[in-house]
Amino acid sequence: MLIVHHLNNSRSQRVLWLLEELGLKYRIKHYLRDPKTGRAPPSLKNVHPLGKSPVLQHGDKTIAETGAIIEYVIRTFGEGRLVPEYGTDAYDNYIYFLHYGEGSVMFPQLLALYVSFLGDAADPLQPIITRQMKDHFDFIEYHLTGHEYFAGNELTGADIQMIFPLEAAKSHGRLKEYQACIDFVDRMHARPAYLAALSKGGHYDYGPKI
Amino acid sequence: MLIVHHLNNSRSQRVLWLLEELGLKYRIKHYLRDPKTGRAPPSLKNVHPLGKSPVLQHGDKTIAETGAIIEYVIRTFGEGRLVPEYGTDAYDNYIYFLHYGEGSVMFPQLLALYVSFLGDAADPLQPIITRQMKDHFDFIEYHLTGHEYFAGNELTGADIQMIFPLEAAKSHGRLKEYQACIDFVDRMHARPAYLAALSKGGHYDYGPKI
Repeated sequence: MLIVHHLNNSRSQRVLWLLEELGLKYRIKHYLRDPKTGRAPPSLKNVHPLGKSPVLQHGDKTIAETGAIIEYVIRTFGEGRLVPEYGTDAYDNYIYFLHYGEGSVMFPQLLALYVSFLGDAADPLQPIITRQMKDHFDFIEYHLTGHEYFAGNELTGADIQMIFPLEAAKSHGRLKEYQACIDFVDRMHARPAYLAALSKGGHYDYGPKI
Repeated sequence: MLIVHHLNNSRSQRVLWLLEELGLKYRIKHYLRDPKTGRAPPSLKNVHPLGKSPVLQHGDKTIAETGAIIEYVIRTFGEGRLVPEYGTDAYDNYIYFLHYGEGSVMFPQLLALYVSFLGDAADPLQPIITRQMKDHFDFIEYHLTGHEYFAGNELTGADIQMIFPLEAAKSHGRLKEYQACIDFVDRMHARPAYLAALSKGGHYDYGPKI
C-alpha cells in the first residue's frame, strides 16, 4: 500500500498527480498547516525527522524529497511510463529538470517569501531576487517555446516536478510576460489525472479555480 | 572530451572530485568570481543561460545542475562505480541524497547568506534559519552515525553531492556539535582523488588547509 503524507496547499500536491497519472491505488494522510503561521504541524516529524511534506510510504520504505519520490515511483511502478528512454537527450532533460525544479528555480521564490516577513527592510535584496527570477523564467520560457513537455514529446516526471514552481510563480503574477509557461500550466491543469488529484488533496491555492 | 566550466570557490569543486574518483580525463575552463561582489562572471552565460557553475560539456551535450551532472557522469562513465546496486535500499538513499543536497539542506544556508546583506534588519528571520539548520544537521548526524557513507558501504555520488553543504557548514562553524558530520568531511578530504581535484580547481575556502 502507498501512503502519501500530504500537507494541504503544498508541493506534495504533485505527488498525488503523479500517482493519478499512473492509476495507482494510494491512501492520503492529511496534514493541515497552522492557520496562523502557515507552518506544517509537528506531527509530520513522526513520519520523517525533517517534518516536511511530501513523504511517501511504501511498505517499510519511507521516502522524502519530491524529486526522489518521483524517481522512486516511476522506477518502481511506472513500467516505462512517464520517463523517456534511457540514454536519450530526453532522458538527460528528465533528470535535469527533476533536480532543477527544487535545486534551483525554487530558490528566488522561497527567498522572496522569507524576506517578505521583513517588510521594507528587505528592499536591498529585491534587485537580486528580481534578476534571478528573470533568469529562470527566461530560461524556462525558451525551453518550453515550441515544446509541449519538459523532456521529450510526452508527459514525464519532469513535468510533474516543474509544475509547482510554475504554479507558484503564476499565482504570484510573475509569469505575465511568459506565455509558454502560462500555457504549460494551463495544459497540465486540464489533465484528468491532475483534476482527480486536486479533488483528493484538499484546498490548493496554486491549482486551477474549479 | 569532458570540459568542466568551473567557478573558483564554488559547488563545482565537487564535479572535479567526481571526475578524479573515476579517473576520467577532463579539461577545466576556469571562471573567477568578481572580487568585489563575489558573483560569477557574465561569461558563464555564454555556456548556459542561467550563468551558473558547474556546467559540464560532453561533446555536444551541455549539462547543468550538480545532481544531474553527477547522475550523468556516473551512468555514462561509471561502469558500476560510485552507485549502489539498482533496486536496493542503498540505491534509494543514493537518489534521495542527490536531491536533498541541493533541494533541501542548502536552503537555510543560502538564506543565511543572502539575509546577511541586510545586517540587523534580518534578525526576525534568524530563529527560522537556526531551527531549519538544526533540523537538517540533526538528521544528517543521525544518518552518518555509524555509517561511513551516505548510501551503502562505499563511496557514491551521494557523498560527492553532500560534501558541499557539509563543507560550507563546517567552514561557518555550524557543525561544532555534529561529530559524525565533521568526521565525514575529514574522511572525504583525505581521499587522494579529493586532493587531486583540489590542486586543479584553484582557491577553495571550504576545502582542507593544505
